[in-house]
Amino acid sequence: MNSETVKSLKVGICGFGTVGGGSYNLLQNNGDEITRRLGCTLEVSRIASRSLKASDINTTASISADPFDVVNDPDIDIVIETLGGFDPAFEVVRQALANGKHVVTANKALIAERGNELFQVAEQNAVSLAYESSVAGGIPIIKALREGLAANKIDWLAGIINGTGNFILTEMAEKQRQFDDVLVEAQELGYAEADPTFDVEGIDAAHKLTIMASIAFGIPLQFSKTYTEGISKITPEDISFAMQLGYRVKHLGIARCSDSGVEMRVHPTLIPETQLLARVDGVGNAVLVHGNAVGSTLYNGPGAGADATASAVIADVIDIARQTLVDSQKPLVPVLGYLSVHDDLGVMDIEDIESEYYLRIPANDVVGVMAKISSILQDFDISIEAVIQKELHSKTVPIVILTHKAVEKKLNAAIAEIEALDDVSGSVMRIRVEAFDNESY
Amino acid sequence: MNSETVKSLKVGICGFGTVGGGSYNLLQNNGDEITRRLGCTLEVSRIASRSLKASDINTTASISADPFDVVNDPDIDIVIETLGGFDPAFEVVRQALANGKHVVTANKALIAERGNELFQVAEQNAVSLAYESSVAGGIPIIKALREGLAANKIDWLAGIINGTGNFILTEMAEKQRQFDDVLVEAQELGYAEADPTFDVEGIDAAHKLTIMASIAFGIPLQFSKTYTEGISKITPEDISFAMQLGYRVKHLGIARCSDSGVEMRVHPTLIPETQLLARVDGVGNAVLVHGNAVGSTLYNGPGAGADATASAVIADVIDIARQTLVDSQKPLVPVLGYLSVHDDLGVMDIEDIESEYYLRIPANDVVGVMAKISSILQDFDISIEAVIQKELHSKTVPIVILTHKAVEKKLNAAIAEIEALDDVSGSVMRIRVEAFDNESY
Repeated sequence: MNSETVKSLKVGICGFGTVGGGSYNLLQNNGDEITRRLGCTLEVSRIASRSLKASDINTTASISADPFDVVNDPDIDIVIETLGGFDPAFEVVRQALANGKHVVTANKALIAERGNELFQVAEQNAVSLAYESSVAGGIPIIKALREGLAANKIDWLAGIINGTGNFILTEMAEKQRQFDDVLVEAQELGYAEADPTFDVEGIDAAHKLTIMASIAFGIPLQFSKTYTEGISKITPEDISFAMQLGYRVKHLGIARCSDSGVEMRVHPTLIPETQLLARVDGVGNAVLVHGNAVGSTLYNGPGAGADATASAVIADVIDIARQTLVDSQKPLVPVLGYLSVHDDLGVMDIEDIESEYYLRIPANDVVGVMAKISSILQDFDISIEAVIQKELHSKTVPIVILTHKAVEKKLNAAIAEIEALDDVSGSVMRIRVEAFDNESY
Repeated sequence: MNSETVKSLKVGICGFGTVGGGSYNLLQNNGDEITRRLGCTLEVSRIASRSLKASDINTTASISADPFDVVNDPDIDIVIETLGGFDPAFEVVRQALANGKHVVTANKALIAERGNELFQVAEQNAVSLAYESSVAGGIPIIKALREGLAANKIDWLAGIINGTGNFILTEMAEKQRQFDDVLVEAQELGYAEADPTFDVEGIDAAHKLTIMASIAFGIPLQFSKTYTEGISKITPEDISFAMQLGYRVKHLGIARCSDSGVEMRVHPTLIPETQLLARVDGVGNAVLVHGNAVGSTLYNGPGAGADATASAVIADVIDIARQTLVDSQKPLVPVLGYLSVHDDLGVMDIEDIESEYYLRIPANDVVGVMAKISSILQDFDISIEAVIQKELHSKTVPIVILTHKAVEKKLNAAIAEIEALDDVSGSVMRIRVEAFDNESY
């Protein structure tokens, strides 16, 4: 390459934590390879960080505490936002876009909860707001959905999109350990935060699912309508019963678009052990996408970590740089992948969805209790696919039932009646089951 | 969307077989969704086919037997080439590019063997030549390599990229059936051609691997340097021994770039059963890619079929349309993903690669034979990782050995000496083993 023809684009980084620092390092370490792909260099000329000193990383970039110094610098072409949270991240991103700069963000909460506003600012200013790294770390799933599968109507997608939760469920399954016990270990290993709520209660996954659903179906971001249920009530016993029935328990984000509306839900789910998705263990992430032409495709890889997330951040920067280099007047791919976004597609209430269900019912070991349960299910048009009822020679035995498809509100009503039976001694455990239309991957 | 603002791009299809017909149908069936994504319509205005009549598909497109009618039509913006083979496909694509038209092709042989010439014509005319559908059917692996992982130096990739071969190996493994027997069934099911050479001897996979290696490392296409070995010599016995050792046998395409040079090879391979790749069964395809930042990511889905392949063809068309709609002067992404292609990176001879090996040695059941074999391996600096030697109370027993890493030419020399032993009664079966650096996916 003739070095005289190499143009340079100037990058500013706001926030120098795991992802910000990782993105900086990646640009240094892979700079030659990136220039070889791109035909131009990417120079980090400004960094906003409260604690970083230039000597820490031997950089010529100017460093200031205030991220607005970065977004108001007229020389900066592309801003990387890795501050996290909303304040000041929202205003930093908004201001950068308003200043005509392209923005790359890893901030899933910001996109899921305030993306609609920011997308509008990006559109008004004809700049890109890219967020590949906000979902599933290093896996290029946003690109697959917006571009690779663009010829499809996406029917549904289902993903293991929180590594912490998947690590916990994997450990519980492999070693028959209790949730609380594994959570402590995950915290010690640095996989889980001191306050693990975001991960184990599914909020982090719900952010990611909200983003994927919008891109998959071309609908506005609607985080508040995503149903969210965590994994803290799952027991090793449930995982073991599921295995006996040929299933694994995974914490999934599921989005579906049908004539009944849009489903967006995060909850523990039984999936057939024959599915590749069921074999994704540990802190890995994976997303299974079903398009009406391609059928099912699966994307698997690391969902977190400095280098893996930086890989997605810098891929976005390269996309934007390629666009700039061909003098494109505006972003090539619409921010949600659609030029025409459906704002009239209703999101279904969780009570209205249809699913198969796993039920674990704590019943007294007396004659006739199974008959009573069957009769209640039948009253609500719920048919039984499989039952596990073991002689345990103890007073209370769990009866495990796998149902065929049923509407959730009918199932809830049936559960209420079952729990009211004299011979049922506690709450019924209910886990949704997804068979994924019997496709093998 | 205001219908007055909808622009239309004109598409011509050359060849109306499985993929050409599938692409046409996909544009009809998903036309509304594609327009919603794109903001313009894609109209098929010309088709080249010898047998098709307009009434067969109720189209207003003009149909002619000669594909050059399509590529010389000044109204056509994008040409889809699904003729297959080289003649007239090469000249059709070349002429289309020379006429300033963008071309989308599903023709893996054409790209792998004559891509370098065609890429030059595309570059000279500042048009796109897109080939997502040439590798792994509906899986957007070209896009992942050229764009999604663009921030990485790709270290290696390994793929199950021939569905026929994977179907045969899966059946052999699950039912302990012989190769020839399953091949006949695959032919009856339509998975294998009457002449199965292309699939089972690895030529089809070598075409795809050649293309992926060029994109991954930024090197010219070098099909003639890709080492190719088929699966016809694999026995159910080998698959069973591999399973006892914790491995599955898969027909892989492997590309690696290291200080020693570039490896490009297609051959049966033992992979650890804990790898997700080992669980990809039946006609599915999957590609595992290792980038120096992201680590390992896996892409899985259907590798063939009219709809799945059409999904990739039309994704390419949409990419080109998006580019056209923002008035980009030239293709955004360089044809191999690199603006600066390395033509000085040597491709290694298969004799110079390092691998672990599985050896099945037909030995007479006499005292001392194992000692002689061990001694030969030691002479060539090959250390043994595991051995299976069973008392079968028959004259000849297979001795199965798993070696640590060794240079292939040393292993070949050792095999020659082992085969010359009096107590070894036939050829040694040798299958390469890949551990993928012990990563869990």
